[in-house]
Amino acid sequence: MKTIGFGWILWMVMQSQWAFAQSEGDSAFVAAIYSHTLTAGHCYEDLHHLCKNIGHRLAGSEAADKAILWGQHTLQAIGPDRVFLMPVEVPHWTRGPREEARYIYRAEGMEHEVFPSLVALGGSVGSDLPIEAEVVEVKSLEELAVLGRAGIEGKIVFFNKSLDPMLINTGAAYGGGYPIRGKGPSEAARYGAVACLIRSLTLSGDDYAHTGATQYNDSLAKIPAAALSAKAASALSEALKSDAKLRFNLHLHCQAYPRKTQYNVVAEWRGTRYPDEYITIGGHLDSWDVGEGAHDDGAGIVQSIEVLRTLKNLGYRPLRTIRIVLFINEEFGNDGGETYASVCKAAGLTHIAALESDGGGFTPRGFSCELSDVQYERFIGWRPILEPYGLHVFRRGGSGVDIRPLRDDRVGLFGLSVDTQRYFDYHHSNNDVFEQVNKRELELGAASIAALVYLIDQHGLQ
Amino acid sequence: MKTIGFGWILWMVMQSQWAFAQSEGDSAFVAAIYSHTLTAGHCYEDLHHLCKNIGHRLAGSEAADKAILWGQHTLQAIGPDRVFLMPVEVPHWTRGPREEARYIYRAEGMEHEVFPSLVALGGSVGSDLPIEAEVVEVKSLEELAVLGRAGIEGKIVFFNKSLDPMLINTGAAYGGGYPIRGKGPSEAARYGAVACLIRSLTLSGDDYAHTGATQYNDSLAKIPAAALSAKAASALSEALKSDAKLRFNLHLHCQAYPRKTQYNVVAEWRGTRYPDEYITIGGHLDSWDVGEGAHDDGAGIVQSIEVLRTLKNLGYRPLRTIRIVLFINEEFGNDGGETYASVCKAAGLTHIAALESDGGGFTPRGFSCELSDVQYERFIGWRPILEPYGLHVFRRGGSGVDIRPLRDDRVGLFGLSVDTQRYFDYHHSNNDVFEQVNKRELELGAASIAALVYLIDQHGLQ
Repeated sequence: MKTIGFGWILWMVMQSQWAFAQSEGDSAFVAAIYSHTLTAGHCYEDLHHLCKNIGHRLAGSEAADKAILWGQHTLQAIGPDRVFLMPVEVPHWTRGPREEARYIYRAEGMEHEVFPSLVALGGSVGSDLPIEAEVVEVKSLEELAVLGRAGIEGKIVFFNKSLDPMLINTGAAYGGGYPIRGKGPSEAARYGAVACLIRSLTLSGDDYAHTGATQYNDSLAKIPAAALSAKAASALSEALKSDAKLRFNLHLHCQAYPRKTQYNVVAEWRGTRYPDEYITIGGHLDSWDVGEGAHDDGAGIVQSIEVLRTLKNLGYRPLRTIRIVLFINEEFGNDGGETYASVCKAAGLTHIAALESDGGGFTPRGFSCELSDVQYERFIGWRPILEPYGLHVFRRGGSGVDIRPLRDDRVGLFGLSVDTQRYFDYHHSNNDVFEQVNKRELELGAASIAALVYLIDQHGLQ
Repeated sequence: MKTIGFGWILWMVMQSQWAFAQSEGDSAFVAAIYSHTLTAGHCYEDLHHLCKNIGHRLAGSEAADKAILWGQHTLQAIGPDRVFLMPVEVPHWTRGPREEARYIYRAEGMEHEVFPSLVALGGSVGSDLPIEAEVVEVKSLEELAVLGRAGIEGKIVFFNKSLDPMLINTGAAYGGGYPIRGKGPSEAARYGAVACLIRSLTLSGDDYAHTGATQYNDSLAKIPAAALSAKAASALSEALKSDAKLRFNLHLHCQAYPRKTQYNVVAEWRGTRYPDEYITIGGHLDSWDVGEGAHDDGAGIVQSIEVLRTLKNLGYRPLRTIRIVLFINEEFGNDGGETYASVCKAAGLTHIAALESDGGGFTPRGFSCELSDVQYERFIGWRPILEPYGLHVFRRGGSGVDIRPLRDDRVGLFGLSVDTQRYFDYHHSNNDVFEQVNKRELELGAASIAALVYLIDQHGLQ
């Protein structure tokens, strides 16, 4: 017993010393990651190139083709084992020339002509001729149903619903507005509406209009649909109070074309010990066709690239196989994510983890995750290593749209969790430009991802 | 025993129900505070006025006089019991006309003339004639001492020390650079330097120069002192590598005048139950004489005003006496804070708490505090009420410069703790303008302060 007892104590001491040494080594390497990213990082310059030399890059567009080539060359220059393009079928839709919209209303005996700030929703149909009709304002899908065909037919439905400012996580506020953008136009068509306007899904009160996908119900008529800026929506609502019969004139020139082939860009860096265990990190290369897609999701793209660059520059050799994936078409059907998961499954690849950055290049606060209890315990064990960098969110629930199709019992999914207050000021609008991204905040995000990838690569998740 | 036991159980149940009901009531009122501030707040408009109609407002300037009047009228309009001006003696210094600086260096056989982005340090002396001399670059006060008179005399000392990017709390990084700005010019003069340049105390690499107070040692010669933008500092350092003998020409036109009287603006809202227990909240109304003083500390000013407005609009009646104080001259000697504490002490006022917002109008993360153990326990008990609003920092150590002179054994001091990543991109530079403040982030800060003030007012701190 004595011998066993001593052996046990010795084992415990050795374990704890090993664990301590290991933890010290991890902390030192994580410090090196942050130091390199913050002093010698290149992601901000990459973002500048992506935003200014390519600009917005809707899936299906020529700009997206350019972005794919740029991503391929940028990753190749860092020198992973291979970079390849994975074909993805994507929609091809264009908004055509700038949207035309105006209305005239009477107030205090005067006529006022207004040209509101407005942007077609992604996927909207256009019309050959302008549509002119009265406007009926509603706050919800339920209110629409109550008005029914008698109240809606022949009119333009205007969903004027603000996001809930009391949801401090603005993503939750956005989630609350999402059904109206997705289903609103088709639900309006159900009752005979001729077009649909929505208040932009933003917490800002400014004059930027925010687009985003709408999903038509194929069993109903497809009517033109557009988002008004918050300011324009408030103004229209006021105008309707003065003149309920005002006529809104809308002419969208959107066109849908046959689907086409574009590509996920995949960089692969082979593991030296467990090459058959994959860790995928990425963001989406496509953006909406406004602004520059700087926060959504240029930030996630250049951060993902930076992870590879940083680890390579630090002389790291991964134990597991790390993939950087620049997904194509998250915004308009998630084709890149679905295709990637299908191809991986068909090839029998085993993912142990995937991580996405798609919340904008803001100050990182931590990670959301979709993990088993055992995986979460491993993850939360790294908290002391990550907390000194301001990472305090280790929240179960949510990861990223592109990586979600990889979900199965074994893979651990993560999302970079960032400060959310400004995101929906920029998101899907002409305001999502390079100048709205702060260099240090962007870099801290890149370093945070690299740190977690390093820990997963070193220790696995179970 | 049975009766006592029952009574004790009953008491426990009542206590816990009372505590629960109390906590529920607190949560509901805190929710009302956030809702009002985020939907009907006026602090963003106030900040616009302060920045655009008054602009920067160095203590001693006419703009500061205007800001004092504006603050007085704005507070009076909200209707506290009284608003009064408290005289404060402040320095009066002007930078005079725009700084003149240039240098010529030779590289690869060519002469290059450079006009670097530069700003005089606050309190710097000027000179009748331009100063032209060689430049000696150092990284620290220690390096300066090593070079000594032999290496320094007759030259312009250039402190080219970057802030440490690895300090994730940028306030700590700033603190590390602070001694050079404060003491550098006098220490350079100790060894015979004719002028002093420093690299701006910023983590950004851009071309904004950042001013701030320097403190001359009265026993040494006073030499002109200025800060170069980070970009200009790097360029000068490169130029010196090509041409160590380059000559820098600097002409500052700064002037010091006799001290004058300005005012702290104090709004007082009398307590209904404990009127002799004071809670002071505030920020500083003065700014440096560049930019618009939007984050530093226009944000803290309009947030403090907003607290009063919100609580009044919600029909709140304070138990204790709440004071909103717009302090004058934090930046250049803390005269407002010192005077306020002296006047309160002379009048025998008992403060139970003071809170300052002076970290910029960024996303609030919580509060720093200087509290006794008992006070801290009370404070941390409110964590469940505050955490739903993203407040997760409840850190002991640090509050605010203006309120620090109030410190004694009884008063609890608090500082609003915000995301720090962008602050030193703007701080004390022409980049600290209204456009850099996000409406929602500013409002969340105001609501967070109001929430804590409400809890302190309701429950005291011990």
